[in-house]
Amino acid sequence: MHPFSQDNPGTGQAGETAILQLVRQRMGNISPPPPEGIGDDCATWQPPPGETLLLTTDPVILGKHFDASHAPGLVGAKLLKRNLSDIAAMGGQPGPAVLALAMGPDLQLEWLTAFLDGLAEACRKYKVPLAGGDIAAANPGTFCATLTQAGSAVNPVTRTGAQDGSPILVTGTLGGSLSGRHLHFEPRLKEGQWLASQGVVASMIDLSDGMARDLPELIPSCAQAALDLPAIPINEEVRQAGNAAIQSALCDGEDYELLFTLAPGTVVESFIESWPFPTPLHRVGKIQQGDPEGILVDNASGNILHPGDGYEHFMQ
Amino acid sequence: MHPFSQDNPGTGQAGETAILQLVRQRMGNISPPPPEGIGDDCATWQPPPGETLLLTTDPVILGKHFDASHAPGLVGAKLLKRNLSDIAAMGGQPGPAVLALAMGPDLQLEWLTAFLDGLAEACRKYKVPLAGGDIAAANPGTFCATLTQAGSAVNPVTRTGAQDGSPILVTGTLGGSLSGRHLHFEPRLKEGQWLASQGVVASMIDLSDGMARDLPELIPSCAQAALDLPAIPINEEVRQAGNAAIQSALCDGEDYELLFTLAPGTVVESFIESWPFPTPLHRVGKIQQGDPEGILVDNASGNILHPGDGYEHFMQ
Repeated sequence: MHPFSQDNPGTGQAGETAILQLVRQRMGNISPPPPEGIGDDCATWQPPPGETLLLTTDPVILGKHFDASHAPGLVGAKLLKRNLSDIAAMGGQPGPAVLALAMGPDLQLEWLTAFLDGLAEACRKYKVPLAGGDIAAANPGTFCATLTQAGSAVNPVTRTGAQDGSPILVTGTLGGSLSGRHLHFEPRLKEGQWLASQGVVASMIDLSDGMARDLPELIPSCAQAALDLPAIPINEEVRQAGNAAIQSALCDGEDYELLFTLAPGTVVESFIESWPFPTPLHRVGKIQQGDPEGILVDNASGNILHPGDGYEHFMQ
Repeated sequence: MHPFSQDNPGTGQAGETAILQLVRQRMGNISPPPPEGIGDDCATWQPPPGETLLLTTDPVILGKHFDASHAPGLVGAKLLKRNLSDIAAMGGQPGPAVLALAMGPDLQLEWLTAFLDGLAEACRKYKVPLAGGDIAAANPGTFCATLTQAGSAVNPVTRTGAQDGSPILVTGTLGGSLSGRHLHFEPRLKEGQWLASQGVVASMIDLSDGMARDLPELIPSCAQAALDLPAIPINEEVRQAGNAAIQSALCDGEDYELLFTLAPGTVVESFIESWPFPTPLHRVGKIQQGDPEGILVDNASGNILHPGDGYEHFMQ
């Protein structure tokens, strides 16, 4: 189903009131009565007492995060899941979300309906109330849906906190987002909440841009990450790519796995043994005092890694 | 300054990292250090203890909420102010905001810089920390900025609560948004907070679509609003339009004034006397048991009003 057509009536002909009714209808009981749900000037929420509020915002934009070949329902689910992955990365639990839709008048109602159904199904699965939002016309050929997700955490885990000696671990397997994983991932909410509750997780991030770009966010100044390249968990689909596989795992992006560091001295083997989830968990390296020349190094050879420059830097 | 050009380098050539640096630079101390400000997976916030959290989201989209003739700094300020007007309509005080920018590669850096400066200046004025956000590429010729504003209120005032006999009041003067007021308005934050603290405000909304479209949101089922047409405060600029002036006041939209109802039996004269602001305040009608044929009626004649059908319905 192509999102746009000039032959069939689009959202422009339906008008704002009809679109708003469509959103309310497809969202069903995902949106509670106002003011907790759609229908007042603001949505209201009572976060769990004593917890810190979390806020994150991420869009899905046609041509950037998906294209006309992707199933609209999966795109709707992706919009929620990318935001939930950020909540997971702080060790939080999701609260309500608000949605802003900007769409060209030629956007097909059928496409929008399927998008909303996918979003509603994901909201149901992850227990996220859709609390409010906005609908606006935009240029023909445009679809930009921005979701802002609220959440809460007892002790949010930030990107700051790793030290010299902090082990680096990652959930799941990496690489291959373009072969479809960018639409078929699970935000690691339960894993993130468990990690935040252990008291030994020093810092955490979710992998949206690929480990090569996201790991530096966890590295303190004057430090570097020494990676055990053979330990990096590579997704089965890309493992067959041989030398290119590690490059894919480090650079493809949109893994939506959790990358985190532990307090120095944590016994990693015991930590991994206590891990209660079927999601894979691997130690992939450690933080160490660093050479300002390179913040990512191969732990075996000491060579500086430049994953952005091409996969030959990763040959063993 | 036109937002787009193919002659000068645009945001597409600058790249995501440079744009992100530009945002951080222009926001300056408007964004506190992470995780309260830009730089972590989520922004964190501690709402005032015991208060209810408020969330609202509104965009500014080129071609919908502004055009190339408008000063980018005013557009940036409008983005914040439209969201703050929703916070005001619940009687809330603003907390942090998150920003999602979707822009074509031909968007001029100079235009974006002026937009960000206007947004930052407004954040400073209204004491709103910019807590995080997202930057994404979109189709050429596109600019869509979506801001989500958090806030809090001790007792949020919703749109529900008016009863038979509730007086209807409005702040400020109405009409004339297209002559520039849609960029030069003040979100009625202090007024909304004061109203929420009085204990007699039954329901409230901010006027974004015009009183004719927004007032029905405050009318309970089986009720109607009887309007004192001569009492409706008309902006000076449109008052000269004669018979069209009342139409303009009811239908232009983007007034961003507060429309609210009081508990039946409230002495309106005393209430207005106790109003501590220079902002005008007027009683414009009352809620009464209604004829299902019309939810807006002229209190003087009893005639049903159809402001959407043209201004002749408003001739005295």
